[in-house]
Amino acid sequence: MNKIAIAIHGGAGTILKSEMTAELEKEYGSALENALQAGWKIIRSGGNSLDAVEASVCELENNPLFNAGRGSVFTHDGKNEMDASIMDGNTHLAGAVALIQNVKNPIKLARLVMEKTEHFLLAGDGANKFAREMKIEFAPNEYFYSDLRYGQLIEAQKENRVQLDHAEQGTRVKGQGSRVKGQGSRDNLKSKIQNPKSKIQNPIGTVGAVACDSSGNLAAATSTGGMTNKKFGRIGDTPIVGAGIYADNDTCAVSCTGHGEFFMLAAAAYDVAARMKYKNSGLIEAAQETIEHLRLMGGEGGLIAVDNLGNLALPFNSEGMYRAFITSDSETSIEIYR
Amino acid sequence: MNKIAIAIHGGAGTILKSEMTAELEKEYGSALENALQAGWKIIRSGGNSLDAVEASVCELENNPLFNAGRGSVFTHDGKNEMDASIMDGNTHLAGAVALIQNVKNPIKLARLVMEKTEHFLLAGDGANKFAREMKIEFAPNEYFYSDLRYGQLIEAQKENRVQLDHAEQGTRVKGQGSRVKGQGSRDNLKSKIQNPKSKIQNPIGTVGAVACDSSGNLAAATSTGGMTNKKFGRIGDTPIVGAGIYADNDTCAVSCTGHGEFFMLAAAAYDVAARMKYKNSGLIEAAQETIEHLRLMGGEGGLIAVDNLGNLALPFNSEGMYRAFITSDSETSIEIYR
Repeated sequence: MNKIAIAIHGGAGTILKSEMTAELEKEYGSALENALQAGWKIIRSGGNSLDAVEASVCELENNPLFNAGRGSVFTHDGKNEMDASIMDGNTHLAGAVALIQNVKNPIKLARLVMEKTEHFLLAGDGANKFAREMKIEFAPNEYFYSDLRYGQLIEAQKENRVQLDHAEQGTRVKGQGSRVKGQGSRDNLKSKIQNPKSKIQNPIGTVGAVACDSSGNLAAATSTGGMTNKKFGRIGDTPIVGAGIYADNDTCAVSCTGHGEFFMLAAAAYDVAARMKYKNSGLIEAAQETIEHLRLMGGEGGLIAVDNLGNLALPFNSEGMYRAFITSDSETSIEIYR
Repeated sequence: MNKIAIAIHGGAGTILKSEMTAELEKEYGSALENALQAGWKIIRSGGNSLDAVEASVCELENNPLFNAGRGSVFTHDGKNEMDASIMDGNTHLAGAVALIQNVKNPIKLARLVMEKTEHFLLAGDGANKFAREMKIEFAPNEYFYSDLRYGQLIEAQKENRVQLDHAEQGTRVKGQGSRVKGQGSRDNLKSKIQNPKSKIQNPIGTVGAVACDSSGNLAAATSTGGMTNKKFGRIGDTPIVGAGIYADNDTCAVSCTGHGEFFMLAAAAYDVAARMKYKNSGLIEAAQETIEHLRLMGGEGGLIAVDNLGNLALPFNSEGMYRAFITSDSETSIEIYR
């Protein structure tokens, strides 16, 4: 029988021990443990990896500590717009939703896209209409409300006012026909995306899970509430096959968290698989190389990955990443910092 | 000085010489020639590849022959929802829009996302709001109307009625907790996506351009009107970095056309680059391998690609692909069939 394994994450970013209380640390620990167990008990009793990653991500979505589902951050308009994706490494089918509102568990809707449609990604009004037709469970605005998240929006809006004024003066680019120039592409991208004005928008708390079941089938799931003060229907890496999620029994299943635009640019989730396929790298080496590549680009974040032997990798280049894992030959491990 | 090169495509699919008139063939030929020249004259006079691919795609969007911009197909609700993307291989910046309406040239809006925001992908209502704030050129519904496209919608709706009834009876999957099983993942995906009922939805006519300028800078652009009778805000590969578009001066610039879900699953555009980076394949070999991989999966389509030496590849696995190219050491070539 195949070694079975599951790993989950609750987001990567600037998580400093100095700013953490013992009580909050305990809360995160037990939230991660509950989510891990939800998936683990499925694969441990012979269930499949797809059901396991969905169950773990549901738990994380239900916990207001994480930026997904219930704990989703607010958009510029004071709404919650959520993205989620799921992928089956056995069938190579995927389902994803973007910019959905008031859906209690976005990951369940992503799975319905995979199973009930011929498409991989539904977004915006259409995705919300699909949710209603599927009679999925909705939750009222109050379910998604917390003083913490709303306070983050107010803070971000203060910052954003500055940023918008700046953009309106046209200092970022010289005109439509001009070209963004810089000292080099990496610096350029960093300065564009990671300018101090947008620091408050750095997303922390995207959640995800990857698993390998007793048949060696792999699956991945990712869910996020996006960026605080998000405008204009921005979609990040979470619902993008190849960027925030990937699963293929022949290589690996991957779920990413971090600054989405960099993960999209790097096709991060697929990049791990590509290094395994084309360079014959092992899972741990491939995952580490992808995260190092992101670091060199200026892209902060991490990922969790599993191969069909039940090996796990959980690399990240940020201060911390909420994470937990268990396999059939190792105890539960729950960690936050480096 | 670097060898300069530009290639464009007007979509891949079942294009049979037996169903083509001499007159229509001539129309396609001159449309492709005009679009090619629009970009070529920019790089030939020392301009950059980014401006060149934008100019070529604008011409294709303005021509009702292609499923992009003016010639976009109709959604289920009788609207035109368009997707477009552009990527700069020098700066590694990208911009994309999805599900936008009444924008005359979606590729121009994609470029504004790249240059005026910190994001890569904007979709739905938010993207349309961004378009209004940018004061981009809009066109009324009539601009996008043609009897041909509307007839295609009516045909598709007839077919779709059957398909919806089928889906509502729940014959495709057994329930939310069940798993899609099949004889193998490739067959499974094929049967899911390419069942006869959805044949009419097979998209033909996505447009794109790739170019290498005299500085060796690469760029790619892709634009589409999506699928006829599209429901629920489906997004395909066109606006997805790594799937329908990719550009990196160190490897290649790629624009894809074909059955979007397969190109997303294969991370097709990035896959060409990954084969060059990790396997040391040349451009032509890498592009051919990616298209062969898609064929084995059941994914119909093609791509155009250029490397920083001005080499071009235009492989496809379908009956035909509208395509044209020119380089500083070759004449204009315009082709439709295999």
